[in-house]
Amino acid sequence: MMQNRFDNTICAPATSRGGAVSVIRVSGMNAIRCVDKFFRGRKPLAEAGGYTMHFGRIVDSDGALLDEVVVSVFRAPHSYTGENAVEIACHGSDYIVSRILSLLLSNGAKMASPGEFTRRAFLHGKMDLSQAEAVADLIAAQTAAAHRIALKQLKGGFSEELAGMRAELLHLASLMELELDFSEEEVEFADRKQLRELVGNVTAHCDRLIESFRLGNAIKNGVPVAIVGNTNVGKSTLLNALLGEERAIVSDIAGTTRDTIEETFNIDGVLFRFIDTAGLRESEDSIERIGIGRAYEKLSSAQLVLAVLDLAAPVPEIVASAEEISSHLSTDQRIVFLLNKADAVPVVTTTAARKALSHLLATQGRQLLIISARDRIGLEELRNSLSETYRDMDAGAETTLVTNLRHVEALRNASASLRRVQEGLDSPTPVPTDLLAQDLREALYHLGSIVGEVSTDEILGNIFRNFCIGK
Amino acid sequence: MMQNRFDNTICAPATSRGGAVSVIRVSGMNAIRCVDKFFRGRKPLAEAGGYTMHFGRIVDSDGALLDEVVVSVFRAPHSYTGENAVEIACHGSDYIVSRILSLLLSNGAKMASPGEFTRRAFLHGKMDLSQAEAVADLIAAQTAAAHRIALKQLKGGFSEELAGMRAELLHLASLMELELDFSEEEVEFADRKQLRELVGNVTAHCDRLIESFRLGNAIKNGVPVAIVGNTNVGKSTLLNALLGEERAIVSDIAGTTRDTIEETFNIDGVLFRFIDTAGLRESEDSIERIGIGRAYEKLSSAQLVLAVLDLAAPVPEIVASAEEISSHLSTDQRIVFLLNKADAVPVVTTTAARKALSHLLATQGRQLLIISARDRIGLEELRNSLSETYRDMDAGAETTLVTNLRHVEALRNASASLRRVQEGLDSPTPVPTDLLAQDLREALYHLGSIVGEVSTDEILGNIFRNFCIGK
Repeated sequence: MMQNRFDNTICAPATSRGGAVSVIRVSGMNAIRCVDKFFRGRKPLAEAGGYTMHFGRIVDSDGALLDEVVVSVFRAPHSYTGENAVEIACHGSDYIVSRILSLLLSNGAKMASPGEFTRRAFLHGKMDLSQAEAVADLIAAQTAAAHRIALKQLKGGFSEELAGMRAELLHLASLMELELDFSEEEVEFADRKQLRELVGNVTAHCDRLIESFRLGNAIKNGVPVAIVGNTNVGKSTLLNALLGEERAIVSDIAGTTRDTIEETFNIDGVLFRFIDTAGLRESEDSIERIGIGRAYEKLSSAQLVLAVLDLAAPVPEIVASAEEISSHLSTDQRIVFLLNKADAVPVVTTTAARKALSHLLATQGRQLLIISARDRIGLEELRNSLSETYRDMDAGAETTLVTNLRHVEALRNASASLRRVQEGLDSPTPVPTDLLAQDLREALYHLGSIVGEVSTDEILGNIFRNFCIGK
Repeated sequence: MMQNRFDNTICAPATSRGGAVSVIRVSGMNAIRCVDKFFRGRKPLAEAGGYTMHFGRIVDSDGALLDEVVVSVFRAPHSYTGENAVEIACHGSDYIVSRILSLLLSNGAKMASPGEFTRRAFLHGKMDLSQAEAVADLIAAQTAAAHRIALKQLKGGFSEELAGMRAELLHLASLMELELDFSEEEVEFADRKQLRELVGNVTAHCDRLIESFRLGNAIKNGVPVAIVGNTNVGKSTLLNALLGEERAIVSDIAGTTRDTIEETFNIDGVLFRFIDTAGLRESEDSIERIGIGRAYEKLSSAQLVLAVLDLAAPVPEIVASAEEISSHLSTDQRIVFLLNKADAVPVVTTTAARKALSHLLATQGRQLLIISARDRIGLEELRNSLSETYRDMDAGAETTLVTNLRHVEALRNASASLRRVQEGLDSPTPVPTDLLAQDLREALYHLGSIVGEVSTDEILGNIFRNFCIGK
């Protein structure tokens, strides 16, 4: 049956347009035979072993030379997809790529849909679903931290952890089912205390993973940072100064450009993402204040808030502004008060302002820095503060971090099922064991869905349609 | 000496950003040793033969896994550059690519400059200079015709032709030098008639190649086509209709996009390029008419002029407009008069207009079509007319076409030198044979410069800086 689903051979460019070299990937039972139709090398690829390379010519249907290429042959199961596969490395020309694809299509191959190669790798058991998802994450990883998580997931670290949890639950289920079998005899085989402990452990593990999503997501999409403050205190200047420094660093590394990502930046291998606080302005207008209230709501997702204060303003005004900002923030948010424009005022003013704000710094996780965004003074300390925010979140490189919304949803569902089991076990009026077993099976189902033990075409479709073509 | 120049190992990404796979190319004496420093496969690459592939891990300087990759090993001289070379195919992540490049740099490799791989291929005798230039042309080729020319040049077709011409000139030179040696004895060894014939042949060959640049350039950069006509006759609608049709066709082929090239389009594998005639409007204002004169000058480079006429206008006006346009064009330009808006007028009007224009169609290379750009009537005939223009220019697939400005310059210089030789031979007062031999050597020099027999760092720099990185 599996065989039938993959009769067809798929092809797609695996590299993007514009490089010196283009690679076209072909996979399927007939991949090698298909390429042999128009490849002319020293010998037919049909005679080639796996993991071998062959120089030769691609000829058009009329026998005309199309390009000279290097072809790599992979034999099932030793390929990315687990199928026979061929990679054609040709000159990086759109024209040549489209002509070779035409040749492949006219010789029985089909264009691959996004992620179809990885989907086949999953369906052929080369990787589980969470590993397949890690492939996309690995490609998208922009920082060392995101790369590390994706790579760990790709290598099966997360899958192993889930396998451990599922083994514990299966053990639990077998204990319960034993009880179920003998339930007519009214014997409680399983030690309820032992069951409780087992469920408790797995639930706690589940919750730890759910909790890790906060950091995992921050690493993948950027640690959320908000810059707040009245108009003209220098927020834009500060943002530009921070981005500017980083731009210079980034452009040093192999022509990296960052034209699409407007407001994230990378400090010591961690991505930070700025939250737009454009709507956040002081106003006497009551309607406008509603808008400001909404902006503050948005702020609540920021792990770090940079509260910019204007040293050129009178001290009472600075204090009022700082109090206003901190009144809107929760205590678990880290705040750095930035006394900006240090270049424009005498040291005595700075000292006075710092003293006047001391009551706000009593709360943990608050800090005050004297800066000049214009003259780029104090930015190094600020960068350190950003890094610290991340380090405070980080539980250590060894801990598994969940970065995928689908995974965290499954974990939440599993956790909810496990809680029902716990409640059942704790209940003074006995809950029928078969109901508990049902909840346990649900938890197993949700955990299994992460690695793809249970998956539907719809789930797979959702996952792989976000992949790029050729992967 | 050659050895010393290429001691260093160069590296660069060979594929562009954003694909599923990225390929990093490394070339140089130490390429294999360099990659071995951070590649962990079944065995060291140092033990690998040429044209072999190896699955393995890339590890960071601290031993941490960076990616799982497939590495291809090429041994000198059987590689693109003729040097030892390694290609690393990793996951298509900017982060991974930049980290692998960092590892290469810290292990002694240098970033390759644009075209440096091909430059090395040339300097190691893997290809001559015109073939190296054809690599860039091949990558840039957008149409079947441009691709065919680039491929022929890459395969050495043009080089062989030049070699033939140079052999003839060398034969001529030896005949002349024989005469030179014995000149003191006042004996004319070489038969002047034979010499004349030989020079004449090569000069004619040279001129034929120079002439081929008109077509070669049109194929490479697009056959120049101008759309002219008064305002509101439907020029833009026509252009959009033509581009629109082609866009639909193009988008069928493997996701080709055409976002940068605004005004070229591809008909039956030939590129057409529209000349901007925005300034071309009827005007009573004398100063504005000067501007219009300039626009007409620009038109003179168009191989084909589409003169759009408005059927909704009174017939005398149509005739006046058509006469005005044709008065500005030379007789060797092909003109297609397009009676537009056929949808808006009765057939009798169309017939009357066609009859009134008949005197303009007497000249060869002129044609009249009834169209409706709005309703897309008659566009197929128009497309055929465009294709015909190209076929009229085309001298057949077997003829060599020069597409490179550097080559045509060298050919012009060679032709000028040969003409001086001819004049000397034809002169009634004898020209000293050593002067003729000097001109002959110059012609040989210019022809040799095309394939790079004689080249300077400056020439090479000019050629290769237009290449992409990684080629």
